[in-house]
Amino acid sequence: MQELSARDITVLFLSLGILLGAARLMGELAQRLRQPAVLGELLAGVLLGPTVLGTVAPELNAFLFPAEGPSAVALKAIATLAIALYLMVAGIEVDLSTIWRQGRIGAKIGLASVAIPFACGLAAAWLAPMALGRRPEADGLVFMLFLAVALSISALPVIAKTLMDMDLYRSDLGMVVVSAAILNDLVGWIIFAVLLGLLGHGEGNGIVLTITLALAFSAVMLTVGRWLIHKALPYVQAYTRWPAGELSFAIILALLGAAFAAWIGIHAIFGAFLVGAALGDSVHLRERTRVTIEHFISSIFAPLFFAGIGLHVNFRAHFDGLLVLKVLALTVACKLAGGYLGARWGRMPAREAWAVGFAMVSVGAMGIIVGLIALQAGIIGQRLFVALVIMAMATAMLSGPALRLILKPARKWAPRDALSAKLFLRHLKFCTRREALEEMVHAACTVAGLDPQRILTEVWSREETLSTGIGNGIALPHARVAGLREPILTVGICDGGIDFDAPDGQPAHILFLILTPADDPRAQLTMAAEIARLFRKQAVLDRALRTRSFTDFLALMSTSTESDPIR
Amino acid sequence: MQELSARDITVLFLSLGILLGAARLMGELAQRLRQPAVLGELLAGVLLGPTVLGTVAPELNAFLFPAEGPSAVALKAIATLAIALYLMVAGIEVDLSTIWRQGRIGAKIGLASVAIPFACGLAAAWLAPMALGRRPEADGLVFMLFLAVALSISALPVIAKTLMDMDLYRSDLGMVVVSAAILNDLVGWIIFAVLLGLLGHGEGNGIVLTITLALAFSAVMLTVGRWLIHKALPYVQAYTRWPAGELSFAIILALLGAAFAAWIGIHAIFGAFLVGAALGDSVHLRERTRVTIEHFISSIFAPLFFAGIGLHVNFRAHFDGLLVLKVLALTVACKLAGGYLGARWGRMPAREAWAVGFAMVSVGAMGIIVGLIALQAGIIGQRLFVALVIMAMATAMLSGPALRLILKPARKWAPRDALSAKLFLRHLKFCTRREALEEMVHAACTVAGLDPQRILTEVWSREETLSTGIGNGIALPHARVAGLREPILTVGICDGGIDFDAPDGQPAHILFLILTPADDPRAQLTMAAEIARLFRKQAVLDRALRTRSFTDFLALMSTSTESDPIR
Repeated sequence: MQELSARDITVLFLSLGILLGAARLMGELAQRLRQPAVLGELLAGVLLGPTVLGTVAPELNAFLFPAEGPSAVALKAIATLAIALYLMVAGIEVDLSTIWRQGRIGAKIGLASVAIPFACGLAAAWLAPMALGRRPEADGLVFMLFLAVALSISALPVIAKTLMDMDLYRSDLGMVVVSAAILNDLVGWIIFAVLLGLLGHGEGNGIVLTITLALAFSAVMLTVGRWLIHKALPYVQAYTRWPAGELSFAIILALLGAAFAAWIGIHAIFGAFLVGAALGDSVHLRERTRVTIEHFISSIFAPLFFAGIGLHVNFRAHFDGLLVLKVLALTVACKLAGGYLGARWGRMPAREAWAVGFAMVSVGAMGIIVGLIALQAGIIGQRLFVALVIMAMATAMLSGPALRLILKPARKWAPRDALSAKLFLRHLKFCTRREALEEMVHAACTVAGLDPQRILTEVWSREETLSTGIGNGIALPHARVAGLREPILTVGICDGGIDFDAPDGQPAHILFLILTPADDPRAQLTMAAEIARLFRKQAVLDRALRTRSFTDFLALMSTSTESDPIR
Repeated sequence: MQELSARDITVLFLSLGILLGAARLMGELAQRLRQPAVLGELLAGVLLGPTVLGTVAPELNAFLFPAEGPSAVALKAIATLAIALYLMVAGIEVDLSTIWRQGRIGAKIGLASVAIPFACGLAAAWLAPMALGRRPEADGLVFMLFLAVALSISALPVIAKTLMDMDLYRSDLGMVVVSAAILNDLVGWIIFAVLLGLLGHGEGNGIVLTITLALAFSAVMLTVGRWLIHKALPYVQAYTRWPAGELSFAIILALLGAAFAAWIGIHAIFGAFLVGAALGDSVHLRERTRVTIEHFISSIFAPLFFAGIGLHVNFRAHFDGLLVLKVLALTVACKLAGGYLGARWGRMPAREAWAVGFAMVSVGAMGIIVGLIALQAGIIGQRLFVALVIMAMATAMLSGPALRLILKPARKWAPRDALSAKLFLRHLKFCTRREALEEMVHAACTVAGLDPQRILTEVWSREETLSTGIGNGIALPHARVAGLREPILTVGICDGGIDFDAPDGQPAHILFLILTPADDPRAQLTMAAEIARLFRKQAVLDRALRTRSFTDFLALMSTSTESDPIR
């Protein structure tokens, strides 16, 4: 039995810890800049891999991430496991019933956004294969098909996140785009599986057999498999320990599905994806299991995988600016055309059709995964891989701002984002209604450069019309201020409580002074509603009164809100 | 770069899927038989490893779990990662403040239950090393210390679970035992770390340096490290995405702690354990993060690790009955003495002191982990390892029944366990109060062999005194029945609703007929309270009315209760 040496174990844990740490840190930074987390995670790998650390400190790089030996194999295996489980989560998000509900428009956009980029990709790869980075030794047909797939796949998680950020996820437009992206994902992955079958990577299965098996596997999983899982879940819940039973049932199925897909000769991740799609579609899958799987996999496994990509490729040495531009221009043009024409075919108005087009442009994580598998299978070289990664990230970054420009959605204000350390008055000096408001208005006006007298008058007149104590120990004094560009939230705490004439007769302990732009009537309502929702539980007020610093308070507000989607 | 071949990937996913599947299945069976899950998980590995599958179908065994090559390395690495993360969870359960609260008695028992078995182990290994399975080439002192540690470590999770099952966890006795076990764990692991230091397995550090570093690392983590983590958590919560930030913060620290411990020259798991102990002690660590980590690791990683043990050792070939008996007798005697004398020293009455002694006897998972590390480090041979594993399991199985025999706790009845398919009347024939009760009483009496007329009279007279409609669409008719040995729960559902004179004026849709033994007054109250708690949420009633079969209903009851601890 091959044992791992103490040194191997040290390196394994150290490299995993550093990789995950850097990936999460950079991922957080990317999200702070309103970019997808995967962008930061990739950059973390680039920093730790041959591109930067390997050049600056090659010995440290070789120690942490050796290219050979047990730790290298272990890291590879963990990355493979990570990506399979991540694809399982992506599969869980594929809600087939959404497609049926949205009906024809979603299907039209989905089909057009696969077919048009696919056709473009085929044509481009046929016309100018070398200019697009085809390796001379790669098979021409395989390369054409690969480029077609790489152009037609889209990033459901990034698209969903962008729509959520703009509060459009549940809108008609949002649901159409999501259902199109789901269809796109599903069709794209099945075509890709067939393409991998063409390479005949299986256990000696012939190409025809592999492709037949891949299609049969997809068909069976999405019909009979889905039905069987749906029937089995209540038994798992009834006769095993909760929640361990359901959780491990899901993971075991994903592992076996991955093994089967790998055995057929297509990639393991495809099996995990299909299992996820079949699982996520059952109403019996409990929210809690879904959330535990998604959180653990998205915040541990996915960052490890994406950062791991940068470890194997030198992005500087293989960077080819012209190729990047060509791939990027081709992708944006094809995908925009696909989404736009699909939407027009579904009789959507032009402006919305452009929005659909830009939403579907985002390639993101899925494009990177497709590229990596193609790189490993020898279909493409490192130069094209680097270009694909940059293209995938650039399109993901482009999509959100373009959508905002076209749709001009009202910005969604969350109380958490409007808080600041300067406007957190932990101990109000005077605990009467008038004096507390004066103190808070002065603080807010100093920071925002407003006239305190004018604001106080407005806040107070509102207060006199109808008191803003809403009960549960909270009061929400507010005013709409002409000329203000974004909401200002001032928090004042009085441990002893102030009478705010609340319906439940309780004094107010925490005062949120909400100043919002006069021309954005929704801002104040959404802020007030969110704060009221947060403090519905008595425990949150109790905890808030035990906070000692702004950070404590912000931590409480963050961990008491609904969890953020992290991709 | 070493790539994993398609075959390696197939084998990796297949072996992980089968190993996890078998482990969870056997673990569930073990728990159904009121045994620790780890027993079933170990047996799953024994079945799949050389002991059974390797003998019956050696080729299949060699294909699934090869001894060499990339899949073997990958499986080893994943098992190492799994055990480190499992120890992190064990560390999170170590609540240092419990020790302080319980004060002297806990500390006395904890110290005695380490010191006495430790002294016994030293003495036994000195007097009869060869009879206890010392390998001739192993260092005498190291072997003595190892046996001393193996005898003195105890299984906090098993002990906690046993106490919970008997509803004793929050009792005075329970808290004393738990705090003693925590202290025992902590001291035991630190001594073991020092022992590993003696082996000088580090990166060329000398023995003295290794031991100094191990002690310093422990001291720093439990004081400064603990304080730093406590201070850092609010920042993590305030300035990163929730819950991804906190979750990955915890895992990153555990990985780095493990790497540091491995680098020092003690085992990686010790670092993860210390990080867990420091983390779990902070009141800032949110329940949700704790639960996500515990569920994912306990139901995926831990079963993989424990089943994996069976893959490397042939339990049949290395089984030595006499050695098993000697090790078992020695352990039971020493640990019983340690717990009993410690409790007497703390002035506990004799009966309770015996209960403490039997609670501390349980070695369980921790003993297996210590044994495995010693096996890998070459301190012990396979024969002694097998004996230790059997001893660890036997003591874990002995502990619960012995405690029950001594303390004779009232059995804790959960509604979920009293349900049966025969007594689930999905559609009551008549929806009036009297007729519905008649139908349910008849069904219950047929199954239990009781006189329906007598029971109906009792149930009805109770109903006439005070109606049992408790609101939320639920009614809890009941009677205490002389001669009944365990509670019988009959469920009747009437979609249209029956007037049960509930305080909220709502008709009852689900009737739970609770028949309990006349001599167990608590049974009826705990059942009724638990059912009322479950149906406090309107969603549970709605879901219950949508169930179509007994399995659906049982699944709903299972997934709506508090989650079971799974170890």
